[in-house]
Amino acid sequence: MRIKENERIDDLEYKGLKIIQNKDGFCFGIDSVLLADFAKEIKEGSKVVDLGTGTGILPILLSSKSKASKFYGVEIQTQVAEMAKRSIILNQLEEKITIINKDIKQLEEDFEKSSIDVIVTNPPYKEINSGIKNEKESKVIARHEITASLEDFISISEKLLKQYGELYMVHRPERLNDIIELCRKYKIEPKIIKMVYPNKKSKPNIILIKAVKGGGRFLTIEKPLIVYQEDGSYTEEILEIYGKENKK
Amino acid sequence: MRIKENERIDDLEYKGLKIIQNKDGFCFGIDSVLLADFAKEIKEGSKVVDLGTGTGILPILLSSKSKASKFYGVEIQTQVAEMAKRSIILNQLEEKITIINKDIKQLEEDFEKSSIDVIVTNPPYKEINSGIKNEKESKVIARHEITASLEDFISISEKLLKQYGELYMVHRPERLNDIIELCRKYKIEPKIIKMVYPNKKSKPNIILIKAVKGGGRFLTIEKPLIVYQEDGSYTEEILEIYGKENKK
Repeated sequence: MRIKENERIDDLEYKGLKIIQNKDGFCFGIDSVLLADFAKEIKEGSKVVDLGTGTGILPILLSSKSKASKFYGVEIQTQVAEMAKRSIILNQLEEKITIINKDIKQLEEDFEKSSIDVIVTNPPYKEINSGIKNEKESKVIARHEITASLEDFISISEKLLKQYGELYMVHRPERLNDIIELCRKYKIEPKIIKMVYPNKKSKPNIILIKAVKGGGRFLTIEKPLIVYQEDGSYTEEILEIYGKENKK
Repeated sequence: MRIKENERIDDLEYKGLKIIQNKDGFCFGIDSVLLADFAKEIKEGSKVVDLGTGTGILPILLSSKSKASKFYGVEIQTQVAEMAKRSIILNQLEEKITIINKDIKQLEEDFEKSSIDVIVTNPPYKEINSGIKNEKESKVIARHEITASLEDFISISEKLLKQYGELYMVHRPERLNDIIELCRKYKIEPKIIKMVYPNKKSKPNIILIKAVKGGGRFLTIEKPLIVYQEDGSYTEEILEIYGKENKK
């Protein structure tokens, strides 16, 4: 597999999976790994769309971690989508994963209404104009709501998902009000929320949300996911998430 | 102080404060103690209303823990309100705390619009018809949304609070969607949420929320409040909350 200047191939340390990333671009982080683990119980045979797939990290991990049958990774940035396509080929996952280079707001052209079982998404966390610095454009688009807002992500989810279809999202705690308000607006009921705390004496910096289109009103907040122990080593739960990858 | 049949006087173990409770009725729990601690930074001179004060536990604790100048405890149940009044007299807090025997939905008769600095509330947790058992009526009213719904608590808060006035609420995690959706509806922005976990491997069973009328959009989720250590003893944070009471 030929890679371009500034690109590198990273080993995902899970069933031999690899990913191509641009060293100067947006590289996947713990949030994608945690979301893939959080969403791993997706039902067998599911059709899954990843909104804003970036380098394709979520469908690549979930193609092995879950029993879903088909993934569509949607990415607006042409160069990033093209890199994701090469990662799919690198992993010989062309039959299972399709990368679509498109604005998520235009997905009604590609899918029938209410035809998708599961949506996964790691959307941009920051509202537009909130502290954009001198970053490379591809990173700015990945991190800020420039090409699509949180509402766009949730409204297109409502259109694509079947009744009782599931939305799995990773986001930042400071946006929880926005997420819940918008999910309610589009009748996708948050059912499970998991807070990820760097350690047991810190504020959470990541939240994981499972919401169900047309779901009933009862929210479960899960036990805390704590990343580091007091001595700075990973907790059992995190070793479980990462460790499994290394063993299989 | 004369107490009635089935009543007892409990020592709050904080600056000599006491409370009268009915042994067969609704007695205060850890949620009220945690809410009083969570709200203790109320600004000096504040006028505070407790919606659904029950036996008066919140104003009694906050009269010592905070620097607020005046409390109004509102309770719909006449016998419970009368018991709260006797607790106020028992603690010689008649000047600082006024108990109002009234439906919270009718408070516009008692207060000018936008005249209150802070509202504290430990409302009924359960929606009407959700698992009402053979409980004493006073307990059913304290626990279920029979006389007032969560929306009633939040809408009256919006009417009473000054712009940037604060709402402190304790509730159950399963109602977080409802709380956030209703707060947004009435323009009282949730600013701080604290999850209370019985231990670090359990789901939270209590949430504490601080919301600000007309507040800007940025939510902080606090570090987790964990009640018990692995050996079953209280954590430092809980000893801090209870311990301070015993030392002063």
